[in-house]
Amino acid sequence: MVTDAEIAEYAAFAERLADAATAVTLKYFRNPIDVVNKAAGEAFDPVTAADRDAEAIIRALITETYPDHGIFGEEHGQSTATLKNGPTWVIDPIDGTRAFISGLPLWGTLIALNDGTRPVIGLIDHPATGERFMGTPGQATGNRQPIKTRACTSLASAILSTTDPDLFLAGDERAAYDAVAAKVRLKRYGYDCYAYAMVAAGHLDLVIESGLQPYDVQAVIPVIEAAGGVMTSWSGGPADQGGQVIAAGDRRLHAAALDILRSAAKP
Amino acid sequence: MVTDAEIAEYAAFAERLADAATAVTLKYFRNPIDVVNKAAGEAFDPVTAADRDAEAIIRALITETYPDHGIFGEEHGQSTATLKNGPTWVIDPIDGTRAFISGLPLWGTLIALNDGTRPVIGLIDHPATGERFMGTPGQATGNRQPIKTRACTSLASAILSTTDPDLFLAGDERAAYDAVAAKVRLKRYGYDCYAYAMVAAGHLDLVIESGLQPYDVQAVIPVIEAAGGVMTSWSGGPADQGGQVIAAGDRRLHAAALDILRSAAKP
Repeated sequence: MVTDAEIAEYAAFAERLADAATAVTLKYFRNPIDVVNKAAGEAFDPVTAADRDAEAIIRALITETYPDHGIFGEEHGQSTATLKNGPTWVIDPIDGTRAFISGLPLWGTLIALNDGTRPVIGLIDHPATGERFMGTPGQATGNRQPIKTRACTSLASAILSTTDPDLFLAGDERAAYDAVAAKVRLKRYGYDCYAYAMVAAGHLDLVIESGLQPYDVQAVIPVIEAAGGVMTSWSGGPADQGGQVIAAGDRRLHAAALDILRSAAKP
Repeated sequence: MVTDAEIAEYAAFAERLADAATAVTLKYFRNPIDVVNKAAGEAFDPVTAADRDAEAIIRALITETYPDHGIFGEEHGQSTATLKNGPTWVIDPIDGTRAFISGLPLWGTLIALNDGTRPVIGLIDHPATGERFMGTPGQATGNRQPIKTRACTSLASAILSTTDPDLFLAGDERAAYDAVAAKVRLKRYGYDCYAYAMVAAGHLDLVIESGLQPYDVQAVIPVIEAAGGVMTSWSGGPADQGGQVIAAGDRRLHAAALDILRSAAKP
């Protein structure tokens, strides 16, 4: 468990981490950079020195400040907390590396603190646009101003976003997404973690994705929840392990979308 | 014809127009706004007071300053230049209204000056990110710094963007796009006019779209061309009437993509 006083301390520390990462990522953004393909075969899963260096500076600060805390990052893997029930920092230095290497500014740095049972602090930072979203129990902010999700009771009035519809698996999964997409007012592609921040801030209503990792979602969940939204797996369970996730600003909209997605939910 | 001195004068005036539009659009952006559907049936083609008011203020400034010039805007239609061979301003107050009403910051204001034969000045303004791209004969800038496209000789090394693949017509057109998309290194969705600015600035390599209007493209062409790129229809002709367009940073890449797209080019 993490106390209220610790939440405040760790939230301030998360901002220090984001500031340090920003100094690294913005140095690389829109400058020539080597792109390495992490994937095998014909797949393309890019990583750059910006990802690696930003994660390295975040890890160094955590290790120096809280040597007993665990760390789980996209680029350098997992180390377990040495304290029993010690918290773990879950980080993605650049969520949206594809956007980053394309000069597109809506990538983000994701920093979460997991208390051993669930993510309790989430920070979504967008250095290229100067926007920072933070969620702690009971409080969500965007650039230090309170934010909240908006009401949206039906798919017919909803704006839906997903980063790339081709990331859904062909078959049931893609069909379930398409069935939801066919019912919404408007859909938008291409925004990675920025779309979740827009749900929290009350501009978008729904994000549906698949194939996510824990470090893609743990920073997002506290922001969405503290802003009044709901984020789960496609079966309605916890979203913190990634996989198939849905985030909605309104609980009624979440239920309507889940009615369709459940048919393709993986265990 | 427009003289060099007039180009300089009109380019400065285009910036005045963009400043005036920005004051309107940013007042509305991310605030509650009524969205009207311009399309018939089940289609959704949103327009808001932000689009209409921004175009109105641009038109008023043009009419007051250059009463003989023509105006062609998305929301309030076309008026012909009263001078023989007089220039026409071609404007889209908000390109990316779907992004605008979703709180997403990459929409833009497009302002072109057409000399009666082709667009000679193009301004792509992104008020929400504070970025402005300008093209005049021989000079392309981003936030007043010179920009140029990057070399990219093959589809295999290219980054491709299109706003929404579902906007291609089913059949030949979609198949031709998919055939190009299958060969590129990376594709990104969702950026409206921002993607063209990124081609001009050397971050993206290729944009392919369809169903565009003259006011969607005329401001973009001078920026792409002055930055060293090439923008045409899918048959390789002028792109200034919209429809099926392709913009590439490198002439060799443009040729490679056109080899595939020509099969689905409309007359």
